[in-house]
Amino acid sequence: MPRFVVTPWEVKGKVDYDKLVKQFGTKLIDHALLKRLEKHAGKLHMFLERGIFFSHRDFDWILNKYEEGEKFFLYTGRGPSGHTHVGHLIPWIFTKYLQDAFDAELYFQMTDDEKFLFRRDLDLDDAIGFTYENALDVIACGFDPKKTFIFSDVEYAKTLYKTAIQVAKHTTFSTVKAVFGFKGSSNIGIIFFPAMQAAPCFFPSVLKGKNIPCLIPAAIDQDPYWRPSRDVAPKLGFYKPAQLHCKFIPGLGKGGKMSASQPETCIFTTDAPEAAAKKIMNAFTGGRGTVKEQREKGGNPDICSVYQYFYFLFEESDKKLGEIYRTCKNGELICGDCKKMLAEKVKKFLVDHQRKREKAKNVIQEFMLKD
Amino acid sequence: MPRFVVTPWEVKGKVDYDKLVKQFGTKLIDHALLKRLEKHAGKLHMFLERGIFFSHRDFDWILNKYEEGEKFFLYTGRGPSGHTHVGHLIPWIFTKYLQDAFDAELYFQMTDDEKFLFRRDLDLDDAIGFTYENALDVIACGFDPKKTFIFSDVEYAKTLYKTAIQVAKHTTFSTVKAVFGFKGSSNIGIIFFPAMQAAPCFFPSVLKGKNIPCLIPAAIDQDPYWRPSRDVAPKLGFYKPAQLHCKFIPGLGKGGKMSASQPETCIFTTDAPEAAAKKIMNAFTGGRGTVKEQREKGGNPDICSVYQYFYFLFEESDKKLGEIYRTCKNGELICGDCKKMLAEKVKKFLVDHQRKREKAKNVIQEFMLKD
Repeated sequence: MPRFVVTPWEVKGKVDYDKLVKQFGTKLIDHALLKRLEKHAGKLHMFLERGIFFSHRDFDWILNKYEEGEKFFLYTGRGPSGHTHVGHLIPWIFTKYLQDAFDAELYFQMTDDEKFLFRRDLDLDDAIGFTYENALDVIACGFDPKKTFIFSDVEYAKTLYKTAIQVAKHTTFSTVKAVFGFKGSSNIGIIFFPAMQAAPCFFPSVLKGKNIPCLIPAAIDQDPYWRPSRDVAPKLGFYKPAQLHCKFIPGLGKGGKMSASQPETCIFTTDAPEAAAKKIMNAFTGGRGTVKEQREKGGNPDICSVYQYFYFLFEESDKKLGEIYRTCKNGELICGDCKKMLAEKVKKFLVDHQRKREKAKNVIQEFMLKD
Repeated sequence: MPRFVVTPWEVKGKVDYDKLVKQFGTKLIDHALLKRLEKHAGKLHMFLERGIFFSHRDFDWILNKYEEGEKFFLYTGRGPSGHTHVGHLIPWIFTKYLQDAFDAELYFQMTDDEKFLFRRDLDLDDAIGFTYENALDVIACGFDPKKTFIFSDVEYAKTLYKTAIQVAKHTTFSTVKAVFGFKGSSNIGIIFFPAMQAAPCFFPSVLKGKNIPCLIPAAIDQDPYWRPSRDVAPKLGFYKPAQLHCKFIPGLGKGGKMSASQPETCIFTTDAPEAAAKKIMNAFTGGRGTVKEQREKGGNPDICSVYQYFYFLFEESDKKLGEIYRTCKNGELICGDCKKMLAEKVKKFLVDHQRKREKAKNVIQEFMLKD
């Protein structure tokens, strides 16, 4: 029995990423690949340095193509079932880095159909509403409006459906059953949905009238979605989509990925800064029972959610991060102070993000793909 | 073992329509219903008098609603996998009669997605091409451009997909497996398709912002498609779609429905009139081995494809039709002469239809639903 479960809909247990790479059949991003990426990008993003983006499929091939003068486009997305939390931002921030580094177009899919079809409690209007709410967060990450195309599956179905049925014609129920675990009781919309999620790997090539390599930066739980796409691609005369995979930012509770279904352990981009600070003050840490004991024996940053937040997103300086780790271990840094430090960073981040998010309301239509 | 098979994709053997009505669970159109219809329509269409439209679901309810002042819309369609043949025209001609009689709007679906997904040999561009070819035949039937909205599933997916996923959310794989016989090897597009075919039962109500009764005139082999729609309708707050069912016009060969897969037994609306006449001269009849024998013993119109053509479409006068039947039976009318008589009628029909079809090219855009 595996000690952890990773599917597009569920992440459970303590994820062993090395095992997952073997289980999924992806490859670890190695030093040679990092060097090649650094050459083109100028510098390596913190997410690469820290192994947050750690796995790939065919990224070496994408760089070969790029070096031969063939540019790729980026494709990532979001299932709009609620407000954005900071965990969602990680692949988006990284995608923005890739857009800048490679001057790449980005197609950003809002899978409002999937969320509606999968979640019993979600109305279609709610899902469409969250598409717009979440798009504001995407735009706030600073993407280039001239090179970024956000679309909702429902609103953009005209173009997507046409490509999706071409994928669907080559994808049997047996295949999606094996990959996603669909059953007789699964609804026929969610059975079809993998074709809608595959479509953006290919429709930009259709729109431009030439085969364009596709690179998908996303959390590794989304990998199964693109397995049928990779199988079908050559049958339709397209390149197989390449991928870069990241880990999950943990929640503020004990273990598990940050999940909107546990809002008290989750920092939403729409949280009032003080409310977010309060959640951090209640976070699970690697501290001891008493301050006295912690001063004597030190804390354990390796199991601490607060430390993870510095590591994943809120402390860019390796030096300062190392300092936090060291002073926690030796008992100098006490949890209360450490949480306050993080809370300040998060509050500052939220104030800044929310300002950008407000501004995004004026330009959202420039980003939405319609024709 | 049934002696005949009727599914949306296959009609095989000599169809026993009484048995089919029991098997499908529909109702025969009885005398009382015909009287009610006649009262509203002014006169009964030949297809009703002759029992070509013979079965229904909830047509009595549609008339109740109509009499209470609640108008219905019409919905029918076509799978654009090839050119239109005269068999396809029967439900369309009847739909035009209903449009005039009840001043009803018509939503006409071109299921180019279905044909592409179902037919291994059909390109999507071909299916879309036939959408336009077939739409010319629909328009040539004389529908009111102000009240008739033709749409292709692929081109109109934006609106259709939104309603289709609402149907899909309430339709399981087990259901479509039972109704359509889907298997593990079925592709995920065709599994989803029943939701696309259900969508036009409901989206006009969505567009108009109120619940509007829907009446579907179509050949009875299409009935299974609307069973899931009828199950789902109340869950979505819509009326169940009502239906009027017709029989199949036979081919010019021995037995079986007219089918484009046997072009030599099939009169296409695009056939050159002389070519159509030639097909008729080669048709299977109820004649005898020699003229002499036929003069003596008479022919058998009951098994004769030529007689069926008069009956279904090409002889509106009951008196003349009776005359053909009688003189065939008693040996006065010889097959060669009878075929010539039909060929003349068909040629005249084709010349007229093709003229209208040419004119339709100028107005097709007025009929195509886009927004």
